[in-house]
Amino acid sequence: MFTGLSAFPLTPFRGEKIDEKAFGGIIRRLAQAQVDSIGVLGSTGSYMYLDREERRRAVELASAHAGSTPVIAGIGALRTRDVLALAEDAQAAGASGVLLAPVSYQPLTEDETFSLYEQVSRELSVPLCVYDNPRTTKFTFTDELHGRIAALPNVGSIKIPGVPDDPAKARQRIQRLRSQIPGHVTIGVSGDRFAAAGINAGCDGWYSVLGGLFPRTCREIVQAASSGRYPEAAALSDRLEPLWSLFDRFGSLRPAAAIAIQLGLMEGPGLPLPLAPLPPSELKEIADLLDSLE
Amino acid sequence: MFTGLSAFPLTPFRGEKIDEKAFGGIIRRLAQAQVDSIGVLGSTGSYMYLDREERRRAVELASAHAGSTPVIAGIGALRTRDVLALAEDAQAAGASGVLLAPVSYQPLTEDETFSLYEQVSRELSVPLCVYDNPRTTKFTFTDELHGRIAALPNVGSIKIPGVPDDPAKARQRIQRLRSQIPGHVTIGVSGDRFAAAGINAGCDGWYSVLGGLFPRTCREIVQAASSGRYPEAAALSDRLEPLWSLFDRFGSLRPAAAIAIQLGLMEGPGLPLPLAPLPPSELKEIADLLDSLE
Repeated sequence: MFTGLSAFPLTPFRGEKIDEKAFGGIIRRLAQAQVDSIGVLGSTGSYMYLDREERRRAVELASAHAGSTPVIAGIGALRTRDVLALAEDAQAAGASGVLLAPVSYQPLTEDETFSLYEQVSRELSVPLCVYDNPRTTKFTFTDELHGRIAALPNVGSIKIPGVPDDPAKARQRIQRLRSQIPGHVTIGVSGDRFAAAGINAGCDGWYSVLGGLFPRTCREIVQAASSGRYPEAAALSDRLEPLWSLFDRFGSLRPAAAIAIQLGLMEGPGLPLPLAPLPPSELKEIADLLDSLE
Repeated sequence: MFTGLSAFPLTPFRGEKIDEKAFGGIIRRLAQAQVDSIGVLGSTGSYMYLDREERRRAVELASAHAGSTPVIAGIGALRTRDVLALAEDAQAAGASGVLLAPVSYQPLTEDETFSLYEQVSRELSVPLCVYDNPRTTKFTFTDELHGRIAALPNVGSIKIPGVPDDPAKARQRIQRLRSQIPGHVTIGVSGDRFAAAGINAGCDGWYSVLGGLFPRTCREIVQAASSGRYPEAAALSDRLEPLWSLFDRFGSLRPAAAIAIQLGLMEGPGLPLPLAPLPPSELKEIADLLDSLE
């Protein structure tokens, strides 16, 4: 479940409610494309904007539409109490794994983060992926802390933000982290721009926003990079440069929403207020590229 | 309500519940010290960690114990839908004003922030204070945006983070902001270290964490600075340097919790998990100072 391509779809909204029909369609499309897992309620799935019942329902829907593809569900919340409740809900609703970031309003200390993972991991009956996302959590993991958390029961993977541009440095970065964690814990790269380079540097998979929109395109990259055909993977990734550049400028959520609307995967605006998708005019420059994918 | 000393108390927890007895005691102590307003459910009041019913109850308790002192209630939430519901609850529970930050998981764009304030301000029947706190919201206001928001109906104040150290620059900063906003909108400084300097630079008041713990000490600073006795205000503030230094190193919430426990205002740990107060050992160096206050 925690290797290969994990696609992180949007949770489409219609007004203030989840658009269940559109969500089901998005999930089925990913399962048909044979992604290795589906990561619902990640940052791209707007997990922090959904209430408990919405989150339970999203996992239930995803599990129903994913067929045999494993569903990983985001369970992050500001309060440990709520994370525990969300973990129970996600497991009961059919999640095969859970994803947990040290989300914060008050950025957490290292001790607080460790104790959060300690309390949550021991209550789980499915494996957990540690979600390292300093941009949204305002928390920076050290490799040493990753090692302590990865040694906790039920921890199965770490979702890291990108890797250094330089291939030697990227490889060193993954080797250093790998040296701190048990052998069964996988490392997946996120920051879509870094996918090919990350797998080339030794990551076991890609936790992918773009995979939620263009799963076949992203599978090609993962397959090339995982089979040691790095120049091919890099070329496939480089072709998407206009997309990476859009994600650099606007983050990935708002462009992903605009693309999903353009692809007809959901209706606009599609995000819970106050969030808004990127205006369609911003996609004009990449229209040809989008048309050429899948 | 939006001038002078606004004291921002902690919301004390006992296990996973608000410690209502301790909270009532904290509110009464502030009212007795004749602070100008009480800001419940600010960052120090852990607002983002409380669910809707806990927040409603906290405002109800504060209003009941504050006597004639106006209560300002934090209504920030990630979703516009929830902010609107919290605004209704706070007003119904007795708040005289509300405080709203552009809180985020995905940092908001300028347009999203403006539309949030636009939607919320027009539904209010009490005045709103714009809460500018880039550390926790990951959003930086421009003065121009402050001006557009301050011109919306029901906006009464802006709570800014500190001011530049240099008095001339601090005065310029306040004058520049003041030139963008209507005359009836006040400017209050936060970042306790900057209180005396901020009022000296032209701020109308102090939105104060320390005021929630040592209201009389903080009133002295406000009174001196507001009466043009700046050297006296600065000397009173400088005396608290060991506290400011603690806040610089650890943020203000965790030290404030440790001090409240030491003062007997609440029982430890007092904060909702995963948050933890500063260990008492960290207060040893400032024990004499704490003993000497109030």
